[in-house]
Amino acid sequence: MPVIDSPAKIDDSNGSLGVLMPGLGAVSTTFIAGTLAIRNGFSSPIGSITQMGSLRLGKRNENREVNIKDFVPLTKLDNLVFGGWDIFDDNCYEAAINAGVIEKELLEQIKPELSLIKPMKAVFDKKFVKKLDGTHIKSVKGHRARIDALRQDIRDFKEKNKLDRAVMIWCGSTEIYQEPHDSVYGSLESFENALDDDNIAMAPSILYAYAALKEGIPYANGAPNLSVDFPAMYSLAAKEKTPIAGKDFKTGQTLMKTILAPGFKARKLGIDGWFSTNILGNRDGEVLDDPESFKTKEVSKLGVLEQILEPEKYPELYGDLYHKVRINYYPPRGDNKEGWDNIDIKGWLGYPMQIKVDFLCRDSILAAPIVLDLALFLDLAKRSGMHGIQEWLSFYFKSPMCKPDLYPVHDLFAQKAKLENTLRHLMGETLITYLGLDYYEDD
Amino acid sequence: MPVIDSPAKIDDSNGSLGVLMPGLGAVSTTFIAGTLAIRNGFSSPIGSITQMGSLRLGKRNENREVNIKDFVPLTKLDNLVFGGWDIFDDNCYEAAINAGVIEKELLEQIKPELSLIKPMKAVFDKKFVKKLDGTHIKSVKGHRARIDALRQDIRDFKEKNKLDRAVMIWCGSTEIYQEPHDSVYGSLESFENALDDDNIAMAPSILYAYAALKEGIPYANGAPNLSVDFPAMYSLAAKEKTPIAGKDFKTGQTLMKTILAPGFKARKLGIDGWFSTNILGNRDGEVLDDPESFKTKEVSKLGVLEQILEPEKYPELYGDLYHKVRINYYPPRGDNKEGWDNIDIKGWLGYPMQIKVDFLCRDSILAAPIVLDLALFLDLAKRSGMHGIQEWLSFYFKSPMCKPDLYPVHDLFAQKAKLENTLRHLMGETLITYLGLDYYEDD
Amino acid sequence: MPVIDSPAKIDDSNGSLGVLMPGLGAVSTTFIAGTLAIRNGFSSPIGSITQMGSLRLGKRNENREVNIKDFVPLTKLDNLVFGGWDIFDDNCYEAAINAGVIEKELLEQIKPELSLIKPMKAVFDKKFVKKLDGTHIKSVKGHRARIDALRQDIRDFKEKNKLDRAVMIWCGSTEIYQEPHDSVYGSLESFENALDDDNIAMAPSILYAYAALKEGIPYANGAPNLSVDFPAMYSLAAKEKTPIAGKDFKTGQTLMKTILAPGFKARKLGIDGWFSTNILGNRDGEVLDDPESFKTKEVSKLGVLEQILEPEKYPELYGDLYHKVRINYYPPRGDNKEGWDNIDIKGWLGYPMQIKVDFLCRDSILAAPIVLDLALFLDLAKRSGMHGIQEWLSFYFKSPMCKPDLYPVHDLFAQKAKLENTLRHLMGETLITYLGLDYYEDD
Amino acid sequence: MPVIDSPAKIDDSNGSLGVLMPGLGAVSTTFIAGTLAIRNGFSSPIGSITQMGSLRLGKRNENREVNIKDFVPLTKLDNLVFGGWDIFDDNCYEAAINAGVIEKELLEQIKPELSLIKPMKAVFDKKFVKKLDGTHIKSVKGHRARIDALRQDIRDFKEKNKLDRAVMIWCGSTEIYQEPHDSVYGSLESFENALDDDNIAMAPSILYAYAALKEGIPYANGAPNLSVDFPAMYSLAAKEKTPIAGKDFKTGQTLMKTILAPGFKARKLGIDGWFSTNILGNRDGEVLDDPESFKTKEVSKLGVLEQILEPEKYPELYGDLYHKVRINYYPPRGDNKEGWDNIDIKGWLGYPMQIKVDFLCRDSILAAPIVLDLALFLDLAKRSGMHGIQEWLSFYFKSPMCKPDLYPVHDLFAQKAKLENTLRHLMGETLITYLGLDYYEDD
Repeated sequence: MPVIDSPAKIDDSNGSLGVLMPGLGAVSTTFIAGTLAIRNGFSSPIGSITQMGSLRLGKRNENREVNIKDFVPLTKLDNLVFGGWDIFDDNCYEAAINAGVIEKELLEQIKPELSLIKPMKAVFDKKFVKKLDGTHIKSVKGHRARIDALRQDIRDFKEKNKLDRAVMIWCGSTEIYQEPHDSVYGSLESFENALDDDNIAMAPSILYAYAALKEGIPYANGAPNLSVDFPAMYSLAAKEKTPIAGKDFKTGQTLMKTILAPGFKARKLGIDGWFSTNILGNRDGEVLDDPESFKTKEVSKLGVLEQILEPEKYPELYGDLYHKVRINYYPPRGDNKEGWDNIDIKGWLGYPMQIKVDFLCRDSILAAPIVLDLALFLDLAKRSGMHGIQEWLSFYFKSPMCKPDLYPVHDLFAQKAKLENTLRHLMGETLITYLGLDYYEDD
Repeated sequence: MPVIDSPAKIDDSNGSLGVLMPGLGAVSTTFIAGTLAIRNGFSSPIGSITQMGSLRLGKRNENREVNIKDFVPLTKLDNLVFGGWDIFDDNCYEAAINAGVIEKELLEQIKPELSLIKPMKAVFDKKFVKKLDGTHIKSVKGHRARIDALRQDIRDFKEKNKLDRAVMIWCGSTEIYQEPHDSVYGSLESFENALDDDNIAMAPSILYAYAALKEGIPYANGAPNLSVDFPAMYSLAAKEKTPIAGKDFKTGQTLMKTILAPGFKARKLGIDGWFSTNILGNRDGEVLDDPESFKTKEVSKLGVLEQILEPEKYPELYGDLYHKVRINYYPPRGDNKEGWDNIDIKGWLGYPMQIKVDFLCRDSILAAPIVLDLALFLDLAKRSGMHGIQEWLSFYFKSPMCKPDLYPVHDLFAQKAKLENTLRHLMGETLITYLGLDYYEDD
Repeated sequence: MPVIDSPAKIDDSNGSLGVLMPGLGAVSTTFIAGTLAIRNGFSSPIGSITQMGSLRLGKRNENREVNIKDFVPLTKLDNLVFGGWDIFDDNCYEAAINAGVIEKELLEQIKPELSLIKPMKAVFDKKFVKKLDGTHIKSVKGHRARIDALRQDIRDFKEKNKLDRAVMIWCGSTEIYQEPHDSVYGSLESFENALDDDNIAMAPSILYAYAALKEGIPYANGAPNLSVDFPAMYSLAAKEKTPIAGKDFKTGQTLMKTILAPGFKARKLGIDGWFSTNILGNRDGEVLDDPESFKTKEVSKLGVLEQILEPEKYPELYGDLYHKVRINYYPPRGDNKEGWDNIDIKGWLGYPMQIKVDFLCRDSILAAPIVLDLALFLDLAKRSGMHGIQEWLSFYFKSPMCKPDLYPVHDLFAQKAKLENTLRHLMGETLITYLGLDYYEDD
Repeated sequence: MPVIDSPAKIDDSNGSLGVLMPGLGAVSTTFIAGTLAIRNGFSSPIGSITQMGSLRLGKRNENREVNIKDFVPLTKLDNLVFGGWDIFDDNCYEAAINAGVIEKELLEQIKPELSLIKPMKAVFDKKFVKKLDGTHIKSVKGHRARIDALRQDIRDFKEKNKLDRAVMIWCGSTEIYQEPHDSVYGSLESFENALDDDNIAMAPSILYAYAALKEGIPYANGAPNLSVDFPAMYSLAAKEKTPIAGKDFKTGQTLMKTILAPGFKARKLGIDGWFSTNILGNRDGEVLDDPESFKTKEVSKLGVLEQILEPEKYPELYGDLYHKVRINYYPPRGDNKEGWDNIDIKGWLGYPMQIKVDFLCRDSILAAPIVLDLALFLDLAKRSGMHGIQEWLSFYFKSPMCKPDLYPVHDLFAQKAKLENTLRHLMGETLITYLGLDYYEDD
């Protein structure tokens, strides 16, 4: 029988929490507007584990089911304060209208609050996002100057809003693909040298992450960008005792993959091919029309099956898997993405079967509650003394970060067990193994 | 940290194992012919966890991955001997040709072995399967006489084939729906009285199960029939120290449901409606054209979502779920079933999304490896001293049996953790909780 | 070369036209509200051939393309006046809100006009539509008395609105299935005797049709009901010199069938099976949950393929076609019907192929422009001296009416040629045969 | 009423007909093997209008339905002799096995006949098909020398097989995209000059076509290549009194488009977007992985909707149509192509609807009967004294050729009317207009 751990020491969840987002576009405005609507009682936080989730404690026949928000000490929605940066100067009401995700009628009801949220000027570098041209950009040059400007923004924001704590969640665009070469990114020293001498271009998402950690605020990376996912940042997070998490919010087609693939694998059904195509018509679709940005996304999307299926372990089942992912810019669909998958599986004696999945999806609707959960859980982690990579939040990411000597866990259900058992562990409850043989011992 | 258990005492797996199946139709001949092909090296046991599965032991960075068949002592495929009963007198080669699942070319290669497997005369009662008319039926009347005839069959089969052990797996048709009224089925005494006085009709699947248990051989129920799923049988299994498992092999559309629904629930996405339709043209389709047989199936298929989603716990997400299942007899499709699902889900702020799943499936191909795994695992359970309901085999069933004071676990991934941790437990290995915080402790 | 006919004598299209509809539900309010929105310039008559269609005249290289509404003398939208009967007393604004087809924002803009349109009390007989209970019903009893009341309604409506002409379009529910027995329906005399002695129940849709014809106003039947489709009515229409048309508006899945099936047949591809399922959640879905109403619909839906494919002529291609249609009441989908078809076709040497069509459809949106076109074309027919069955309007119907010694034309493209050549014929233009060899004669 | 034409003078159909095909790959071997199987009575010519089609003559109530092969004088299947060229030297049995379209069992039955058909050495130029490397290539250089070699092949083939007549059908690969610049291709003189001086590269499909016409044998172009579709060739065809037809066999997804799009247009439903994706794993898929070959195909595939929908005539309905076609090489699918289409349509008041079509298709199975019909109909045309572009065969092509001053007819149903009325015209029967008002004249 598993040992019952003693609960962790966790700081108080009272006080207000700032949620700072680079990128005030479709995802972040859907998150902000939605949270405002929810705390005004107009709507419901569907899709959020922190707000809607519950947890079984103890044995199955003890009937101890608790709401997660009652079980672990989380910041209340009423105590959240929203801010961020963008390359356009639309306020959040205007940006939400442009995004076209939430219907106008609902936005009108929270227009006053939403209009007050205005973006700070962004750090931007067109080299990393070729399809966009921003107009609301910081004028300072040089890595260090830009980082300092961001840190000052953070401090001003906290002071102005009398915040007790803050977190930063990257909600900006996908940047071009980058390899994290060891000579620069391999240690905190080499990385900080590179910041100092300005010879190497640095993706904005890296500068934001660095600024956050230096201010001691947790950072999560919602895009497949490098950002905080290299050894120098791991060291910095350890040094600053600050949690980090990433990368690439798990929504839409990849969410479906991490649900389906573990299912086929659990049943040891082989897979010969998996063809995925997407049509989408929003700004994301436009950015991903650039092959370099698409490559970053593709690496993130393709990796999922490889990691879940472990073809090296099951060569007969997955050794010949042909996996292809396509993203098509298709304006008629607007923000409502559609993903079509064809999966060629094989069973007993190699007989082929086919599965087609058509997902009429809404990306920002799937992403918004992830932003909320990450903000609250990262804040919980910080208050609990946890720092560095928060692997228990893998549940929310397409490409979960983990220690270099481990392999990432992609299976949504293993990720869920990891998240739930981490919460049980924090509160000193028995971990759940699903063994349950003892129920039958007296038979 | 979880405690390491000491390994169970498990009897030797040497010697031959009889696999007896009521019903030598599409599923059982696909299982038998496939196993013969596999052990002759012509084909591969895809879909079988006992043959293809592996298991992680210890920590993620220990790289201790073992094949299940090397880890737990299972009977070898070479030591299996096949037998059964059917209401038609075709031998297994003829029955496999009729079923049309495996192509003729493969069947020819194992024709001699396959032709030798001939069904024993079946116990049959048309009242329970209205669409079929059998010609190969035992002439004895009365419950006790029929049971005795079946027990004699079992003993003859074991003796003739010099078997060390046997298991029985129900592969017959779906019977009409029956409520397990307590006055008859509630205790072993009342049930045996009913067997004695012959006043109440008893479904054949109940008589087979009773015969198996009285012979001390494990019994699994591949259909949604009552069969072994009532208190009198639980008592008998305990008394005879024999394992039982059921019910209704988890294949096709329901397999997909138990993969998808836990995924939506994990992400706290709501579901407003789930419409499932099936087209199939085999004998199964014909039997299920009878509304009374369909009802048994429908109860089994509908229960799945209710149990996984727990609407009473999540009324806002699943309280209004409209779940409809249709099965249509459609001859052009032959044995290749097709299932189409429309799922109406909702996310953040209640925004609707849709998912369509089209599964071009082969039922018997999905069911055959389940028969193999159940035969081997039930035999393992018996040799390990386990008896009564084997809840750890829930993984294989649409309507998993469990103790009356528990609720069944339908989530495929919880079922998988239960199965795997049971194997670890049997062999004295640490159970896996997916916590993994210790990997990061020295950061 | 085809002869050029001289144009028909057609009465003037000036003056106002009343459009009277039994049933002011989803279809008719979508038609009325839409027409009001269109003539106020708020929206567009997409789907209407009379408003959006054009026609080629003469040879392909003459470039004589005309808009249909400029080519034939049709009543202007501004001159339409709407009225009708319903079993509920909601005015058209309220009924449109309940129907939930058109968004509130658009309805608000035409609320004053829409609210003024109030239903007259309906003739209703629950025996023919078992799932509905009306509250706004005429109290008079007896066939003749009911017909007289309806005729008085028509005359009052024309007088009150100073109308020059009127048409009636049945937009009410599907009634239970009825065979048109010759002894009653076979001649005008026997039918009128039956009206007189009141011994036989008469479906309301028959009484409405009779009233319309006796008032000399054209009648179209938008449901699969018997209504105007029997010899007695053909005689009455001839006697009253009045056009009739029917039956069952061609929308959704059946529209797709009459597009696809002629395509397969044109290419001589065989069809082994066609499985069609529908999910819908509106009042229609509820009515069709009654097996007797469903039967009327099913006969209408099943007939389509038989007529198009002519299995008696092509036994090898269509002789074994297994055609199944299912309609499922599924509330989550509301008024937005969804149809899923699986089609098993076969080609060269009998090789099988499959086609799946998923139609996310809106029934009333597809039906509304049909109501408009039928009103305008029936009025044109009347003014052109045409009467009896208007087979050239087959284009709009699932079960086109035709003379008893002919067979109906179901192929959408043959129907279109028939409609277009009828218009050319009316205006004295050359009929189009698509021959076009003369273009190449001088080569 | 249309005039009855007097029948054309048509030469006798007796004697044997050679069918010569550049490219003995999947399509042509499926055609040849299939035709052999059919004339040996092993199989059925499903998909062939010449073999399976029938035609209505006269009025609907005359019941004069004739089989096309009895109505017009076509060469009998028994009198066909097959030959061709290929860049590999496999005989037709070997090539059919490699293609993997027809199952081995059927091929074995006709192996002797099939093995005797061996390709002549091909004219090939890698510049035009970059993904292929041939080994069975004519060594002569220069346009004129190659043409002469091909003409000699044709004469030898006819003599050796004692043929009365021959036709040539291009069944080879898609070549890279080419504009038919007037300075070269605009007149027969400039074109023949270019052949003489050898300065400009000429696609092999052009040289084959030229050779055919100079030998006076009809030529059809099954690929989207330029080949015979430019003014110089039109002049040559006129001069040589020889029929030509093209281009690009209409199969699979484009076939579906020419069925569906005319349907939507007939009902004046708008289309905002049409997204088509294909997955296929055969040699075709490989060739089309080259962007230059794909462009030729894309132009052919994209043109279809533009021509059918006439956005210039219906700007409100089709002016903003976003049409995207994707082809993906996906080996798991082998020769069984799959096409998935998403169509965004709009109806009354602009309300959107969606249609998804998933076509599990077999390209060669759809193409083979087209080869047969074209061979027989082109031979009929030649014997009937028709020459130049045979627009009445548009029915079979994705990009129908027509006179420069006309526009092509893409609508499958207009194409069908054209084909059928041409046959009626040839035999002196009344053309069908679908008017049919006279049936009702005596009412």
